Amino acid sequence: MKNFFEPESVALIGISRKSGPGSLNLMERMIQFGFPGQIYPVNPNAKKILGKQAYPNVRDVKERIDLAVISSPRETTIRILEDCVAANIKAAIVVNQGFTDADRRGNELQQKMEELAIRDGIRILGPNTLGVLNNFNNFTTSFMPVVKEKAPVGLICQSGIHIVAPAEFCGEIGKGVDLGNACDVGFYDALKYFAEDPGIEVIAIHMEGLKQGKRFLSLAGKVVKDKPIVIHKSGSSETGAKAAMSHTGSIAGDYQLLKTALKQTGATFLEEAGQMPHAVKTLRNLPLMKGDRVAVITYSGGAGIMVSDGLEKYGLKLASLSPETTGKVAELSPDWMPLGNPLDIWPALMLHTAEKVCSVALRAVLDDPNVDGVLCIAIAPVPEFSNLEVSQLLNSVVEESSSHKPVVVWTYGPNAREVRRKYESKKRIMTYPTLEIATWALSLLRDRFKIVEPGAQDSFP
Amino acid sequence: MKNFFEPESVALIGISRKSGPGSLNLMERMIQFGFPGQIYPVNPNAKKILGKQAYPNVRDVKERIDLAVISSPRETTIRILEDCVAANIKAAIVVNQGFTDADRRGNELQQKMEELAIRDGIRILGPNTLGVLNNFNNFTTSFMPVVKEKAPVGLICQSGIHIVAPAEFCGEIGKGVDLGNACDVGFYDALKYFAEDPGIEVIAIHMEGLKQGKRFLSLAGKVVKDKPIVIHKSGSSETGAKAAMSHTGSIAGDYQLLKTALKQTGATFLEEAGQMPHAVKTLRNLPLMKGDRVAVITYSGGAGIMVSDGLEKYGLKLASLSPETTGKVAELSPDWMPLGNPLDIWPALMLHTAEKVCSVALRAVLDDPNVDGVLCIAIAPVPEFSNLEVSQLLNSVVEESSSHKPVVVWTYGPNAREVRRKYESKKRIMTYPTLEIATWALSLLRDRFKIVEPGAQDSFP
Repeated sequence: MKNFFEPESVALIGISRKSGPGSLNLMERMIQFGFPGQIYPVNPNAKKILGKQAYPNVRDVKERIDLAVISSPRETTIRILEDCVAANIKAAIVVNQGFTDADRRGNELQQKMEELAIRDGIRILGPNTLGVLNNFNNFTTSFMPVVKEKAPVGLICQSGIHIVAPAEFCGEIGKGVDLGNACDVGFYDALKYFAEDPGIEVIAIHMEGLKQGKRFLSLAGKVVKDKPIVIHKSGSSETGAKAAMSHTGSIAGDYQLLKTALKQTGATFLEEAGQMPHAVKTLRNLPLMKGDRVAVITYSGGAGIMVSDGLEKYGLKLASLSPETTGKVAELSPDWMPLGNPLDIWPALMLHTAEKVCSVALRAVLDDPNVDGVLCIAIAPVPEFSNLEVSQLLNSVVEESSSHKPVVVWTYGPNAREVRRKYESKKRIMTYPTLEIATWALSLLRDRFKIVEPGAQDSFP
Repeated sequence: MKNFFEPESVALIGISRKSGPGSLNLMERMIQFGFPGQIYPVNPNAKKILGKQAYPNVRDVKERIDLAVISSPRETTIRILEDCVAANIKAAIVVNQGFTDADRRGNELQQKMEELAIRDGIRILGPNTLGVLNNFNNFTTSFMPVVKEKAPVGLICQSGIHIVAPAEFCGEIGKGVDLGNACDVGFYDALKYFAEDPGIEVIAIHMEGLKQGKRFLSLAGKVVKDKPIVIHKSGSSETGAKAAMSHTGSIAGDYQLLKTALKQTGATFLEEAGQMPHAVKTLRNLPLMKGDRVAVITYSGGAGIMVSDGLEKYGLKLASLSPETTGKVAELSPDWMPLGNPLDIWPALMLHTAEKVCSVALRAVLDDPNVDGVLCIAIAPVPEFSNLEVSQLLNSVVEESSSHKPVVVWTYGPNAREVRRKYESKKRIMTYPTLEIATWALSLLRDRFKIVEPGAQDSFP
């Protein structure tokens, strides 16, 4: 996979002479993206493309080429791949659609491509792929714009949409690969590469179908001890499975069977694609949760109830706070206020500053041996009430604490988006769009603890 | 309820002399909010508050008072309510906490309050409430800032958080009432008021517990024929039910039993609080869906598969598009492209403008008798690719169509937030943060069609 992610020289076969806005010219995008290696444009109808000498055939390039990217009508693909083999190229990306994603002829062509890969020892990524993204060396084969983030997250998918729209599908990505129809390079190869990459800490997978499942499952079961693997598998429905067939020619397989097998590896299995960005940032940034006991600190009694429902749904429970903990908050609250968990701090906020109340409460639950994780519900107020906004304060409390317990925040109100960014600025506290997702995120940290330390004593009887 | 929502004169009992930033002075907020009626501050320790004559006791006000808002330590509340009765006031809001939400003494006091309401014919809202919000006459009793939107949405809740943070809990609100501990004014009263209010088209309810359930359920069953009612009930778990008890003293009751009863009224019942804003805007703005057959138009094959999974989950299915429909898109696509539903338009976009492809596709599915609703998956691109952004175009197609079918959009990519706003600008098309939610939203329109026209023939065999 090194040739795909870290090539020093790339041939772009079938690259267009058109460039500029809207032209989707890959060579132009690669240069703009800052690729430091050599680029060899191949186009029999051009002398120069974007100022570089163009070659009529890839065989005419006399330098070493690590990777060929082929964008060319499907009937020409096999011939071009044979040229690549002749030019001693070991890795090729076939961008075009029209293979197992299309008709009978497409199936025949892809079958030939697969045979060629095995026979001639060239690795082929695709067809029907946007290729790769590597933000660590400014390399991409995506003709659509991509976000440049040096995040320690590796993404494996079968659709360009996951790479083009990371916010919706994965969150920040450092490296990504779209397997497309996966005629040769598959989930096993990509997983192995990310497993061995010291720059990748979390592996996110969006799967349509899995070939050579045993090899992948066995590797995943090993990798997951070191690095979290988060998987969404589409095609859970009959309709979806049929659609997967026509999108990448993937045999979706028996969803329930594959789901069970994927879960057994210890990977974090997602029921919905939209959960991916939340799962990835949670597992990437927060300490694991050693038990199932959650302390809830809340500005709002009503929200406290809603979160209680979520805890039970995701196999967590409200911690029985120690008398020391409730005592510290009781000192700040009116006499009549019954204190428990959820810890409703609103009455205390009517008497003291938010800074004081929130730091006392968060310190107390972090120190409480009956607590394994913390969920804070706090307002994101308009500037007039900025005294109620405690993102920096809570970050300091977490930073000073030696408890290594996860702290997640759900914040609501007119300024929620900006305040969420402030909470996450140090990557010590994570925030979520709904209370349900915040609760679910804690459960992922609990589940992963059981995977990583299966023999560890639970911290509760 | 008219006295609560549309008072012409309000006494503020126990109003503070402190004002300015951070003081949470209700009188100041009411004036800032633009309340056009009379305000009578009551505070025995002040001569004037914010320039207005203050009264030692509400009995000393000689003018008519429609509503009293009481913010005062709990032990003084009964005496103040008796003063209100003596002053011939017919409606009072008790803001303070410390009643059934607190201890035994609090329970006793609330019991007395309830008896007083029945005996003396004064309606009491609360205690433990932020009160009301009426954006149509610039009236609120919330001491926290609220958003001013003249939306035809009425909210009934038991926690101020729903009024203070509408984006997270309900979306735009025109009128809202926080029932708090609901000692007297309850869900029935508020529902009746919104049912009769011509300015309210959708009713959103967040419930912790329900007293006098039969009366409410019977009314809801009638109202729902005219106006959608969307309900979230917290306390689905044992833990949550216990928390509801301590928040507003609500008996959460048997969740499953109440859920069944609420669903039987025909109301839209939500499993998660975070679904509320999506449900409300869907039912408020989109036409109902007369059958279960959805056409999916997508820029991304991968997303097409994901949406197929969601359809099955929510009881919908992919429409079998008519040959005319696929034919129109096939004319714009490469020969090898197999066209079906999801209608993958990406290959066509490589050959034609997005304007052309998207308008042909959307018009075709809206005209297709085999289609009951439409989901479009489109990119929200960076400015360089603004030619791929079709929000205005799709709005025009919907506007020109006489099909009355709902169109929802899921948009992804670097500019998603801004592009979502553009799609929704005419309130003809609604957008959602995830594909799953977009699919679910369509299912609500399908479910409501069955409620509103239970005798109607399904549009499919």
